[in-house]
Amino acid sequence: MRRFCFRIFRQVGVPEQDAAIAADVLVAADLRGIPSHGVARLRGLYVSRLQSGVIAACPQTRIVSETPATALLDGGAGLGHPIACRAMQLAIAKAQDVGAGFVAVRNSNHFGIAGYYAMMALEHGCVGMCMTNTNRWTVPTFGRNPILGTNPLAVAAPAGKERPFVLDMATAIVPIGKLEVYDRLNKQIPLGWATDEQGLPTDDPGLVLRNAQHSSGGLLPLGGAGEESGGHKGYGLAAWVDIFSAMFSGAMYADMLYPREADGTPRESLVGHFFGAWRVNAFRPLADFQAGMDDLLQRLRNSPTAAGQERIYVAGEKEYEETEHRLLHGIPVPPVVMQDLIALGEEHGVRLE
Amino acid sequence: MRRFCFRIFRQVGVPEQDAAIAADVLVAADLRGIPSHGVARLRGLYVSRLQSGVIAACPQTRIVSETPATALLDGGAGLGHPIACRAMQLAIAKAQDVGAGFVAVRNSNHFGIAGYYAMMALEHGCVGMCMTNTNRWTVPTFGRNPILGTNPLAVAAPAGKERPFVLDMATAIVPIGKLEVYDRLNKQIPLGWATDEQGLPTDDPGLVLRNAQHSSGGLLPLGGAGEESGGHKGYGLAAWVDIFSAMFSGAMYADMLYPREADGTPRESLVGHFFGAWRVNAFRPLADFQAGMDDLLQRLRNSPTAAGQERIYVAGEKEYEETEHRLLHGIPVPPVVMQDLIALGEEHGVRLE
Repeated sequence: MRRFCFRIFRQVGVPEQDAAIAADVLVAADLRGIPSHGVARLRGLYVSRLQSGVIAACPQTRIVSETPATALLDGGAGLGHPIACRAMQLAIAKAQDVGAGFVAVRNSNHFGIAGYYAMMALEHGCVGMCMTNTNRWTVPTFGRNPILGTNPLAVAAPAGKERPFVLDMATAIVPIGKLEVYDRLNKQIPLGWATDEQGLPTDDPGLVLRNAQHSSGGLLPLGGAGEESGGHKGYGLAAWVDIFSAMFSGAMYADMLYPREADGTPRESLVGHFFGAWRVNAFRPLADFQAGMDDLLQRLRNSPTAAGQERIYVAGEKEYEETEHRLLHGIPVPPVVMQDLIALGEEHGVRLE
Repeated sequence: MRRFCFRIFRQVGVPEQDAAIAADVLVAADLRGIPSHGVARLRGLYVSRLQSGVIAACPQTRIVSETPATALLDGGAGLGHPIACRAMQLAIAKAQDVGAGFVAVRNSNHFGIAGYYAMMALEHGCVGMCMTNTNRWTVPTFGRNPILGTNPLAVAAPAGKERPFVLDMATAIVPIGKLEVYDRLNKQIPLGWATDEQGLPTDDPGLVLRNAQHSSGGLLPLGGAGEESGGHKGYGLAAWVDIFSAMFSGAMYADMLYPREADGTPRESLVGHFFGAWRVNAFRPLADFQAGMDDLLQRLRNSPTAAGQERIYVAGEKEYEETEHRLLHGIPVPPVVMQDLIALGEEHGVRLE
């Protein structure tokens, strides 16, 4: 699957190294059990935009500014994955040098799963962080229209015997892909995930998806509608991610991402990202940090379960187990996705082996 | 009120500069409309612990390790506020030097509101961040017992004409103080804020508070019970804050904070904090950042409201308005708190003017 994605990217003009990175990030999403960010998006999010030139296949990327602990990169409107990978490498190199490193990226595109880049820090004895802004889907607390993206943030911290802690979460309650799944199954969504065009909670996923075309209603931030259950906190987190992704970098933000021409044709996406790395032994010995992490994660996992529950997870654990299972048994790809991949391969003379 | 707190701290042996900082942070909480972290806690959280020696009045603080962008401080079991203030100043100084600075603190105590320290970055052209772990109150997703604290995180970012963005949030849905308020009023809490000793949602705040004494049941993380509304995300955020507060610093974590002797006597709290500062113009000119912030905040505030709503806020806005109002009209202090403060003053020969 990785080879197939690589060859498709190559066929639409992406340089070898960039194609390898993008293919690896896409397949990593499928391995981790996040198909909404995996190969199913190969055509829609990337190939069709590369073909129309909205995403530059061979972008002119550059370092705009730099200090010992920070840098700002311009992604040249290229694929998000390669510039994100380089930004995170630069953040890690700065962390090796001065203890911590942060790299903002502007003029980029969708980069897949945020967790991938945060996790790059782990093998370097660093804690990693990654954020990105995204297409507008989320309504602010007490608001009617989607002004913010689902704006994910990811944090990865190394452990010792335990698997690393990997938090990779959208700041909306659910991603838009989940509404599409419910809509296909003709199922109602729980009240509290999304709002209608009045800004009121709705259980109709199709309504939310249709309204999105004229940008009214949308997803609710983590914590739900209003303030009673902390919706203003999820809204605050989404705004935080937008600020770090766009204000440090000069990328677009809020409802100005993924602009379109009057006729609906997509223009350059102008997405922003933010990457961070903290070198653990700049603070204290890595072995001490790892031993503490093992103990913390075990205290959480081994604590008594609520009535009717069998198991307590820690962030990233399900995804590690999913990856191990899929590496052994393969990635399940729905027929409709497989047909599209085969067709995409035929269009570009690449066979899905 | 600030002078009163200052003199009380002085009377129990706190050095002048430390007493001034602690008094300022306490009153700042009341000004911002967060009485649960204000003068109402003067006796319980601080003075009684200073008197019993659980908090060291004149702590031996020290820098344990340092790199250009990082440092680790030992708070010497002193008050949290002064060491937090110094840690944030050090983070800002490092940001001035190399673009970003991060300071972890161990062996500390309750430091009041996290937002206070994040906001210190604003006047230096920096974005500030602050986290701390706290007494265990929060149950992990699918768990029965409180293993994590309400673990707040705060982020402050400067704007231009607009007020700064200040997100200051516990990672539990509500603070424990809110349950105390409902309990005093004999009101039910919404199902979803907290769980009973079986780990199941309850609407009885008194039950939750009583159970806390033997550490079963507790507050639910942002997102609520289970995973349907994203409770695992709030749980992940709470764990993130614990990792940054304790693993970088070597502080205590999870259910090991605020330990007690067998007879219930408190021992040293061993709280950990984490502070960060990013210098804006290490990335791009401050004026550009501020103009972008103004536009982002206006896009949020000026977007259409949901049916029945009058106004959309941005993070920190309510607290700024509350501060302006209270500076003009005074801080409302409930009679029971005022009586306790007067009594505290009498015990220490300090008159509440």
